[in-house]
Amino acid sequence: MQRIKLSDTLEISRVVHGHWRLADWDMSKEEIIELVEECLELGITTFDHADIYGNYTCEAIFGEALSLKPKLRDEIELVTKCGIKLISENCPEHKIKSYDTSKEHIRKSVENSLRNFKTDYIDLLLIHRPDPFMDADQVAEVFTELKEEGKVLNFGVSNFKAHQFSLLSSRLDFPLLTNQIELSVMELENIEDGTLDYCQEKRVAPMAWSPMAGGRVFTSQDEKAIRVRETLEQIAKEVNAKSIDQVMYAWLLEHPAKIIPIVGSGKIKRIKSAVAAMEIELSREQWFEILQSSMGHEVP
Amino acid sequence: MQRIKLSDTLEISRVVHGHWRLADWDMSKEEIIELVEECLELGITTFDHADIYGNYTCEAIFGEALSLKPKLRDEIELVTKCGIKLISENCPEHKIKSYDTSKEHIRKSVENSLRNFKTDYIDLLLIHRPDPFMDADQVAEVFTELKEEGKVLNFGVSNFKAHQFSLLSSRLDFPLLTNQIELSVMELENIEDGTLDYCQEKRVAPMAWSPMAGGRVFTSQDEKAIRVRETLEQIAKEVNAKSIDQVMYAWLLEHPAKIIPIVGSGKIKRIKSAVAAMEIELSREQWFEILQSSMGHEVP
Amino acid sequence: MQRIKLSDTLEISRVVHGHWRLADWDMSKEEIIELVEECLELGITTFDHADIYGNYTCEAIFGEALSLKPKLRDEIELVTKCGIKLISENCPEHKIKSYDTSKEHIRKSVENSLRNFKTDYIDLLLIHRPDPFMDADQVAEVFTELKEEGKVLNFGVSNFKAHQFSLLSSRLDFPLLTNQIELSVMELENIEDGTLDYCQEKRVAPMAWSPMAGGRVFTSQDEKAIRVRETLEQIAKEVNAKSIDQVMYAWLLEHPAKIIPIVGSGKIKRIKSAVAAMEIELSREQWFEILQSSMGHEVP
Repeated sequence: MQRIKLSDTLEISRVVHGHWRLADWDMSKEEIIELVEECLELGITTFDHADIYGNYTCEAIFGEALSLKPKLRDEIELVTKCGIKLISENCPEHKIKSYDTSKEHIRKSVENSLRNFKTDYIDLLLIHRPDPFMDADQVAEVFTELKEEGKVLNFGVSNFKAHQFSLLSSRLDFPLLTNQIELSVMELENIEDGTLDYCQEKRVAPMAWSPMAGGRVFTSQDEKAIRVRETLEQIAKEVNAKSIDQVMYAWLLEHPAKIIPIVGSGKIKRIKSAVAAMEIELSREQWFEILQSSMGHEVP
Repeated sequence: MQRIKLSDTLEISRVVHGHWRLADWDMSKEEIIELVEECLELGITTFDHADIYGNYTCEAIFGEALSLKPKLRDEIELVTKCGIKLISENCPEHKIKSYDTSKEHIRKSVENSLRNFKTDYIDLLLIHRPDPFMDADQVAEVFTELKEEGKVLNFGVSNFKAHQFSLLSSRLDFPLLTNQIELSVMELENIEDGTLDYCQEKRVAPMAWSPMAGGRVFTSQDEKAIRVRETLEQIAKEVNAKSIDQVMYAWLLEHPAKIIPIVGSGKIKRIKSAVAAMEIELSREQWFEILQSSMGHEVP
Repeated sequence: MQRIKLSDTLEISRVVHGHWRLADWDMSKEEIIELVEECLELGITTFDHADIYGNYTCEAIFGEALSLKPKLRDEIELVTKCGIKLISENCPEHKIKSYDTSKEHIRKSVENSLRNFKTDYIDLLLIHRPDPFMDADQVAEVFTELKEEGKVLNFGVSNFKAHQFSLLSSRLDFPLLTNQIELSVMELENIEDGTLDYCQEKRVAPMAWSPMAGGRVFTSQDEKAIRVRETLEQIAKEVNAKSIDQVMYAWLLEHPAKIIPIVGSGKIKRIKSAVAAMEIELSREQWFEILQSSMGHEVP
């Protein structure tokens, strides 16, 4: 599998496995390790987490599994996030949902992630959401400390718009390596508002979350979903794709901004399907046909 | 009181007194001077004007008062603005409301402000509104001349979006020191559209006009005002604030962008209340609770 | 006529003649040459094309005419565009309308334009529309090659927003010389969204397409058109303009961003009228009166 060099010290796999729903997959430690090893065989070495996934449980579930085969740690890249505080019985001190990008919270969250993963370093830490109360100097300070301590090797953001990325970057002596954004055939906001162009300009490979749009292309009866589904089905035939999800992945993978899709499925069959999408070649016309089916009109 | 260093040559008080409605307060010269001296005792040394305030009368009213105690001039910082032309019996040559950022108008407006204030320098001059017909080179030229002549010591803008600030800055050999924008619990536009992030990135401390949202939080029966008011009342209790206006000021003062609220009241009691807000500490959760009461929904 | 220096190697006339509808004018080669010569007498030396104009026929119609007087080539500047693919019997391989800014397509399009025009160089080539699938590195590569080969002397874009202009610029060793955007009294989008400010900041003189808003100011009965028309008629009287189209051109020509209107008429009388508009001087108040008639409200 192709690998994306995000910096001199970090390469990740072109497709990332997302553990957002790891807690829901209801897998034993052994089954998780089996899935990781199947991913590794496919070339997927990068796994995406966040402190809050699974109501603050996914990191620890994965850490427990990893402890069965500690050597796997060096074969994978761990991505995790911080900055959101959820109402949760696991965090009784949170009274409302809010963001926290203070030095104290980022450090505490990282220390906690390290404990959960039973590891001594995180490959890539992301600020989960742009925080309207962000003190960019504070974030830069704690990022720099965590990097010097070797606890976090690289940093990025998630769901940031261009101006937010620019603000945080302006305070750092090292680059933010990714912006993990919602991106799919069904969700064009980050294409339309310039976020993706900004990533391309800054040579920041974006990660795409919800690349399958939460599955609503497959089942929804709304007008847009039907229109997109029909287009995807027709193009799947034209390019001999096994299913429309492959066309959806190919649509992201072919984009020149080097979009890295996060495959959020626990089923190896679906993961393999995503990986196989890398073999599919869409023509420019097919790419635009899909775009236009989502927009609901021709390009101007 | 904390002071904000806007440049090597300009420091202003953390809270600014706004003279937008000076003409409406119906005060004698002596009463105005008394109010100024009470402000100075509180640590407020910066007074915000514009050529057009009070239908082009406020500057002169203040200048008349100042002439009673000319020594006060050196203890205060005078901020004023130019660039809007109002229909007014005081300016019969104006046929419509329009903007004018020509060299000639800016110079004429400054000369007029100096005469009105009976002073020979303005500490900080702002372009009042972004002018779609602005020739940035012309503005830069006259700013530079006025600075060299010592008539205006420092410059900034008001109500500018990021790209407008960037355009004018690109032509100047010195920085724009502030962007005076509408900002309050009730008015989030400049938070949501990136203007505040841009200020933070450029280390430009913004001034907030209408920090009390024109008082509509206190009295309005619309859904949003009620929602915000209830939240403010609850948090006022939690932090032992004397009134919800203090919580509104604290919400601005705590923001990392160093927001400088403009207190527009002529009543010393209200001004003291604003100053006392600097002692209030809101938790991040409280800050977000207020934000969310204004947005009408949780952060994503 | 005033000329605009876009770079050390390219000067164009302050008013450009647009050949968008050349095919519709139904003129003989001789008539076209006559019109060109009349333009030259007026000082208009720059002619605006695109590969797709007239369903891919305008360039060749003009090239055929030019071949009657090949010496004219050196007296004019040829602007053309590429990047849009239309459904057309002249391009049966296009199945849908789409964009293509690949190296291959840009090169092929340029070679074709050169053949159509029967010339060996294009003065200014524009990317016609921002392509959401644009690989800026590829565009830069082929631009650089075409420049080195002497086939295209200068480059620009059309309909780009600031971030798209910034992305492509970031990959080029030479500046993009213009952004051809829709701009008229009736169409303020590029004024309101910062595109024009960005052009001014970067000292990129924009070309205005549809400066007469497709004629709807003259005839439409919608509220906005009536409002604008009445304002233009009144101001035409005030400034002794012969017709409201002159006021519309003057409104663009006076703007400090150095807007270059593209006159799209085949009638020399209309072209002369546009040129004569350069003599009209609008006051700032008149400029704002027109702006406000289009916005439907006063400036804030």
